[in-house]
Amino acid sequence: MKTDDYPSRTGEPARLIPRQDPVVYAPQGAPPPISQADIDQFEQRGFMVLHKLLPEREVAALEQASAQLRKHLQHEHSQETITEPGSHEVRSIFRIHETSPVFKQLARDKRLAGLARYLLNDDVYIHQSRLNYKPGFCGKEFYWHSDFETWHVEDGMPRMRAVSMSITLTDNIAENGPLMLIPGSHRYFAVCEGITPENHHLASLKKQEYGTPTETCLKTLVEQGGLASTVCEKGSVIVFDCNTIHGSNSNMTPFPRSNVFFVYNALSNQVVTPFCAQPPRPEHLCARQNIEPIPMEISQH
Amino acid sequence: MKTDDYPSRTGEPARLIPRQDPVVYAPQGAPPPISQADIDQFEQRGFMVLHKLLPEREVAALEQASAQLRKHLQHEHSQETITEPGSHEVRSIFRIHETSPVFKQLARDKRLAGLARYLLNDDVYIHQSRLNYKPGFCGKEFYWHSDFETWHVEDGMPRMRAVSMSITLTDNIAENGPLMLIPGSHRYFAVCEGITPENHHLASLKKQEYGTPTETCLKTLVEQGGLASTVCEKGSVIVFDCNTIHGSNSNMTPFPRSNVFFVYNALSNQVVTPFCAQPPRPEHLCARQNIEPIPMEISQH
Repeated sequence: MKTDDYPSRTGEPARLIPRQDPVVYAPQGAPPPISQADIDQFEQRGFMVLHKLLPEREVAALEQASAQLRKHLQHEHSQETITEPGSHEVRSIFRIHETSPVFKQLARDKRLAGLARYLLNDDVYIHQSRLNYKPGFCGKEFYWHSDFETWHVEDGMPRMRAVSMSITLTDNIAENGPLMLIPGSHRYFAVCEGITPENHHLASLKKQEYGTPTETCLKTLVEQGGLASTVCEKGSVIVFDCNTIHGSNSNMTPFPRSNVFFVYNALSNQVVTPFCAQPPRPEHLCARQNIEPIPMEISQH
Repeated sequence: MKTDDYPSRTGEPARLIPRQDPVVYAPQGAPPPISQADIDQFEQRGFMVLHKLLPEREVAALEQASAQLRKHLQHEHSQETITEPGSHEVRSIFRIHETSPVFKQLARDKRLAGLARYLLNDDVYIHQSRLNYKPGFCGKEFYWHSDFETWHVEDGMPRMRAVSMSITLTDNIAENGPLMLIPGSHRYFAVCEGITPENHHLASLKKQEYGTPTETCLKTLVEQGGLASTVCEKGSVIVFDCNTIHGSNSNMTPFPRSNVFFVYNALSNQVVTPFCAQPPRPEHLCARQNIEPIPMEISQH
């Protein structure tokens, strides 16, 4: 039996093990599509914030498309639409890179997909896409987690060769629950306790209880790397490695927080059988059948 | 029947009504115990932060006393000790100005009590005292509220003539759920909806559901005054008017947040029969029998 470099929720004790994969896959000397300083920060800290990458008129159009989708879907009873615990407010809409022409175009945008291709040094496709909306007053927190841990255990993503991009459609201020990350946490794999229960994804998208690092692991990582909040203007893009541990606090301000989230995976890193004993999660959480590599240079700006 | 200047939870619709009381009661020309600029800010914004008022050795002694109390009381089944929802972590300990010699002395400290006496232009006593401890990883949020609203409705505090002081025993950073306030909100009384249920305080100290302003009122106040987070070092004192609307986000960082909280009330503003139809709350939440004016100049530094 093949050994698993990243065992988690297997009954083994929680601990930190070193990452076995590169962070930036681009070969030495390949010219980066953004500044080398940003790339270096991404490699060292596990994330970078590209402030105001999108001009205001583009953000306005995306926000409008987003509001329409949320309105259209708020009474939809579908697994692809997640509502806030205790309300009908739409919290997440999945698979927008396939269902919405506006977001399909955005996912293929050279500024995003081209950067992903550089970082992963491969053709890329969308592993997961979603629109996140954290309403004012009642937005709940997301606890600390590594996305890769879930994607590996529950989806069967073999290696750490995927990158997430969060495109902010509203300003992220310190008070409205901005994305928080633990710099440097991407260099370790935090083995999690417990065993994945059946249909975990139905509960975990509202409140994650498995696949979260222990407090001891989190303390160690924060002692090493500190904490970072991604306070930024709308139209910014937060790019983070698939394994960087992140979370966000609640939002009781009147200011909603909205973003578009794309996960670019390397074509060579397509998902296999999940590393847990459960059946694969549905297609809208993890592309398995519909793998469509993003064409190069399809969208010019 | 006497009319109530500050009706709330009476079945009337939610709205903002102007404050009928002064903010700073000190007569014109009385020399302030701190800078006039700080006093002006308190009057205009409804709060001020006195950064690092207490030197490090004092903070260390207070933090030690606080940790001992929390440890001593964590398995105590008492109304004066509130645990975190879903755990045994101690969240609040009440009446520390009577039960702990260390905190009794702090409550009478000239730097705090003398300032309260100046702001309220009267003898002062402790209406409520407590130790707040928001543990790392699992600290839950406190939703927006005006303390005066509760103290008026549930305790029978007649006028807005009380001031709260929060002495920080840990650093308040942007990420660990620092006190947030709505500047200028103290100039309005936000009439709240609903009717106070029986024994409301047993639930409200964990999660407040009555006595919270509506989203419309909050939006109006934030549009006017914005939002402020009290990021500050340990040993700072956050002084806020009894009617300034405040709250705090959850804390999922490894950094606990701990503070001592004293409410100084003017002796002339002692509580009467509550303005709701319920019996008075217990003594540890609202001093009614044990009114002991703080002697002037008892503690010198």
